[in-house]
Amino acid sequence: MAVTDIATRTYDHGFRLDPIVRSLLDTDFYKLLMLQMIRHLHPKVQTTFTLINRTTSVRLADIIDEGELRAQLDHARTVRFGKKELIWLAGNSFYGQDRMFAPEFLQWLAAFRLPEYELQTVDGQFELRFEGCWAETTMWEIPALAIINELRARAAVRDRGRFALDVIYARAKAKLWDKVERLRDLPDLVLSDFGTRRRHGFLWQRWCVEALKEGLGSRFIGTSNVLLAMDNDLEAIGTNAHELPMVYAALADDDRGIADAPYRVLDDWRRHYGGNLLIALPDAFGTSAFLANAPDWVADWTGFRPDSAPPIAGGEAIIAWWKAQGRDPKTRLLIFSDGMDVDTIEETYRHFHGRVRMSFGWGTNLTNDFRGCDPDGMAGLEPISLVAKVTQANGRPAVKLSDNPAKATGDPREIARYLKIFGDEGRTKAKVAV
Amino acid sequence: MAVTDIATRTYDHGFRLDPIVRSLLDTDFYKLLMLQMIRHLHPKVQTTFTLINRTTSVRLADIIDEGELRAQLDHARTVRFGKKELIWLAGNSFYGQDRMFAPEFLQWLAAFRLPEYELQTVDGQFELRFEGCWAETTMWEIPALAIINELRARAAVRDRGRFALDVIYARAKAKLWDKVERLRDLPDLVLSDFGTRRRHGFLWQRWCVEALKEGLGSRFIGTSNVLLAMDNDLEAIGTNAHELPMVYAALADDDRGIADAPYRVLDDWRRHYGGNLLIALPDAFGTSAFLANAPDWVADWTGFRPDSAPPIAGGEAIIAWWKAQGRDPKTRLLIFSDGMDVDTIEETYRHFHGRVRMSFGWGTNLTNDFRGCDPDGMAGLEPISLVAKVTQANGRPAVKLSDNPAKATGDPREIARYLKIFGDEGRTKAKVAV
Repeated sequence: MAVTDIATRTYDHGFRLDPIVRSLLDTDFYKLLMLQMIRHLHPKVQTTFTLINRTTSVRLADIIDEGELRAQLDHARTVRFGKKELIWLAGNSFYGQDRMFAPEFLQWLAAFRLPEYELQTVDGQFELRFEGCWAETTMWEIPALAIINELRARAAVRDRGRFALDVIYARAKAKLWDKVERLRDLPDLVLSDFGTRRRHGFLWQRWCVEALKEGLGSRFIGTSNVLLAMDNDLEAIGTNAHELPMVYAALADDDRGIADAPYRVLDDWRRHYGGNLLIALPDAFGTSAFLANAPDWVADWTGFRPDSAPPIAGGEAIIAWWKAQGRDPKTRLLIFSDGMDVDTIEETYRHFHGRVRMSFGWGTNLTNDFRGCDPDGMAGLEPISLVAKVTQANGRPAVKLSDNPAKATGDPREIARYLKIFGDEGRTKAKVAV
Repeated sequence: MAVTDIATRTYDHGFRLDPIVRSLLDTDFYKLLMLQMIRHLHPKVQTTFTLINRTTSVRLADIIDEGELRAQLDHARTVRFGKKELIWLAGNSFYGQDRMFAPEFLQWLAAFRLPEYELQTVDGQFELRFEGCWAETTMWEIPALAIINELRARAAVRDRGRFALDVIYARAKAKLWDKVERLRDLPDLVLSDFGTRRRHGFLWQRWCVEALKEGLGSRFIGTSNVLLAMDNDLEAIGTNAHELPMVYAALADDDRGIADAPYRVLDDWRRHYGGNLLIALPDAFGTSAFLANAPDWVADWTGFRPDSAPPIAGGEAIIAWWKAQGRDPKTRLLIFSDGMDVDTIEETYRHFHGRVRMSFGWGTNLTNDFRGCDPDGMAGLEPISLVAKVTQANGRPAVKLSDNPAKATGDPREIARYLKIFGDEGRTKAKVAV
């Protein structure tokens, strides 16, 4: 007896669209933390966020129908924070802290909707921009990336038969579980999911998160995805991102203000969050320059998230700096999050084990590793390097230098200007795989 | 929104039992072909079939609850051939032949039910016997084996979480598909599923058969499982089995009658099926003896199914015999079916390619290969060597010598007697894995 649930099947076939963004909590936790500070300190700042496809060989607009993309973006604009979601944000504790979000902020969130977007297709790529109030445009970053990545994955598997699909997901599951079994051999591992923006799809990310929860137990400390954290009783993980120093620098009136921007961000952050969430992202304009000029109080922070330097070299540089500042690295935390996979996690873990506290943010290679899984061997499921970066603030160009020149963004003349200010020391060009 | 089909879920939880045998067509095709001949020529013969677990280290009765086993055996006795099934047997053509089954036989099948069984537990093993009319007891072989193998698999996974189960099947699917991709590289491959009796479970065998159909296309010629052949529009594959020469020999009045039994079987077979289905199974009492004494007309048959000799040595012996009889091996067929897996299929294919027609019957390693798939690394899913053999005919002991002494069955004194009649030439002891 073949059992078909006719009602479900009819419902599925009646989809106007199969939505990718089902909740405004389906975003990275740091977005909400930054948003609260942005609204409080910079409510009038106008920004532009721009989609950047670093994998130029993949012509996204040839793969994804522009109409479908618009339908998904339009759908995301209809989504509101639900009552249950706001109650959870209000009542949950984050990093051991109650009432992380102020009642007034939550009230504002209740009416929040994603702002308008501008989309056009130029030479096989999408030009997608979000212009407006920083406190609104910032919220597009994650859903926009998740939508495009999932639409691309859907296009890649669209013509596969039921059987090929079954094999693709069976292989991807087997592959992830092999990774879990390797990670189990690292007894003090501390790992979280950072894979929302680059995921294959929402349902797949959910499976990955459930797999890590089941397979790694307490070594899996949480997920950056707020919705999955809520639904799975996991910690929501994250603090802040490059957009803060990028906007602060763009708004500065002179070179001195640009040079000082990363520290003003951290100063605002520690005041705003009352001495919690003290993880610094040092690489917006190069880690070497950041460390060389950092005020002493930065060494009192919990730790750093080196995000574009090679993990071992980047970690060593920070450890050396802590020692030079008279701090014991064993009391400090390094969070590695740049394109990590099991090999680099193992290598980094073994290299630093016992010398510093460590945590890993596992992103694209967790939630979008379908390499070798497609029985037809066709392309289209390999991850690409897609980002949505702030490119302007109050009409002024925003720049990211990064520790890896291949990850720099911004107008070339502005990049040159920033390089004069921050120097080029310690920056190493490396292939950006994901 | 998590969608639960409440009706289905309630139905599932209300199972008196989750039946293993859902249809009397869920058996090997050769059983039906043999059954028709047995009813026609030997309607009065009484036989005993006995369960034999060659993997004595696996104490089946410690794993499977005797009550559950009885419930499944009892359930199988309630199953009848359905109207659709009998119409299909009547209307389908087998091996290009219409009306393979006589109307009178199909009428008899309509009232058929599996006969009684005797079951007791002795020292951790089940003593399971089927005594009675040959035309009834013979039909227990496949369902009894399928039931015990599936109950054992169910017991092995009973305490696994939802997640571990998901990983087990994902890995098994990935593993099978890797095999399919290797087999695709053999352009003239001819392969069929012989895995009913040793399968992990019915639903898993169905997945395997669908995988081969999808992945191998016309290189997958069919399945021995009649139900799966019907449901998937595949050829039902099979001809005859060792029980025929074993019973004929047991019924013989003297040593000469025993020595002659294999050829009397083939003579009855060719007469009964009008010169169709001419595949000989040479190894019941040793292939060397069979070939040495075979009448010339056996060399006119379509081919042989060497089932217990090492495939290459066994195939070479038969090819040499064909040549000695003045027949061209290129016009003849060898069907390899003894514990084959991808490695041995590839090796055998490459060895004989171009010299003889070849076909592979893939059994246990197709439908029950979960080695390395269990994330908890626990035992219980590895296949075992379980058979149900005819042990008596009209009260006389039945014997199988086989080309592999480890696969011999019967009373030791009888085996010694048969070895005097047939000799021991060419028999090679090999580990019986499955």
